[in-house]
Amino acid sequence: MTAKSEQTRQLVIDTALGMFRERGFEKTTMRAIAQEASISLGSAYYYFESKDDLVQELYSRIQLEHRATAINAIRTESSLSKRLQAVFAAGFTVMEPYHDFGTAFLQTAISPSNTASPFHEASSDSREDAIELFRLALDGASPATPASLRQDLPELLWLGYMALVFFWVNDRSENQYRSKALANGIAPLITRLLTLAKLPIARKVVEDAVSLIRKARS
Amino acid sequence: MTAKSEQTRQLVIDTALGMFRERGFEKTTMRAIAQEASISLGSAYYYFESKDDLVQELYSRIQLEHRATAINAIRTESSLSKRLQAVFAAGFTVMEPYHDFGTAFLQTAISPSNTASPFHEASSDSREDAIELFRLALDGASPATPASLRQDLPELLWLGYMALVFFWVNDRSENQYRSKALANGIAPLITRLLTLAKLPIARKVVEDAVSLIRKARS
Repeated sequence: MTAKSEQTRQLVIDTALGMFRERGFEKTTMRAIAQEASISLGSAYYYFESKDDLVQELYSRIQLEHRATAINAIRTESSLSKRLQAVFAAGFTVMEPYHDFGTAFLQTAISPSNTASPFHEASSDSREDAIELFRLALDGASPATPASLRQDLPELLWLGYMALVFFWVNDRSENQYRSKALANGIAPLITRLLTLAKLPIARKVVEDAVSLIRKARS
Repeated sequence: MTAKSEQTRQLVIDTALGMFRERGFEKTTMRAIAQEASISLGSAYYYFESKDDLVQELYSRIQLEHRATAINAIRTESSLSKRLQAVFAAGFTVMEPYHDFGTAFLQTAISPSNTASPFHEASSDSREDAIELFRLALDGASPATPASLRQDLPELLWLGYMALVFFWVNDRSENQYRSKALANGIAPLITRLLTLAKLPIARKVVEDAVSLIRKARS
């Protein structure tokens, strides 16, 4: 892509995201985006086949910002609870401007055949990045992750975080304080459950859970 | 409602559900439903304001069938694992005819402001019924539910079941065998986790988890 066309592509994205925030997702058509960006409709479609593609772009941007916002806390904190709280909080912070169109976003994202779905193959880079963020949070943290969970826990945490995001999208409390309180409470619980998972009495059930998850995913 | 109008209402529902299954959700308009049922469009709208209302009706029917299909296993089995397996399997059985339009159903159901959402107030009767089914499965089962979890576990199991349904909707394996294998594997894991939850060492973390969940919900 030339510098000029990369610039136009960025213009389409910025315009679209601004309009999603201000007018809502439903009301923002590709035509309106092109008009607002002062480019032709054909040009807009050249970069993005549909609004769904723009949602995927948003998903990938949010992911990058999420990492950038959370990484400092991960590097300077060793407590796993505090690291997880920081990762959850950073996620809410970067998603905040989009809360009002969260439902439309979810509806687009939830369809497994939709490329914007976090579960779709086309999103695998963003998803891998998101899972990687949880891997970073676990690496070198205290307490250490039990060996049996080291490989799978980042993805499980990411799935749990997706559930938190679902809660957040549906959260009508002021500034989504409930979601934030829930995330802050869940982080230390995860840490304590990990400590329990290391006990001999829990080992077998943890192993069986891991093998079940692997089978479901494969 | 008179017998005649109840009959028409049922006709609209049966026609709509049949069309959802055969033509798909998107393509089935209120107009097409009215035509197929040989009633006026106004008459169709008299009973249901929108397709979303019909989705809620479907949700409530599935719920009733789910209970009817699962209740026998609950009554004749005492093993909690087997009861849970039966409840999950019954759910998949009654939802099976709708698998192909599961995504459209989810998209309608996921919006918190949508009356068809299982999380919406308008669905609270169906949701209560669904949670009640898990309460029945726990009552008198072996092993017994720890006292600290007795009040909240039915709802937690229902939430877990919603996650399974989400997996099932996205499941492209033949006859959704992956979802079925996952459900069959999860049931005994739940039972074993409950046994662990009774240990003194786990008591505090279980209590804290319960109080966090109650706070998030209130």
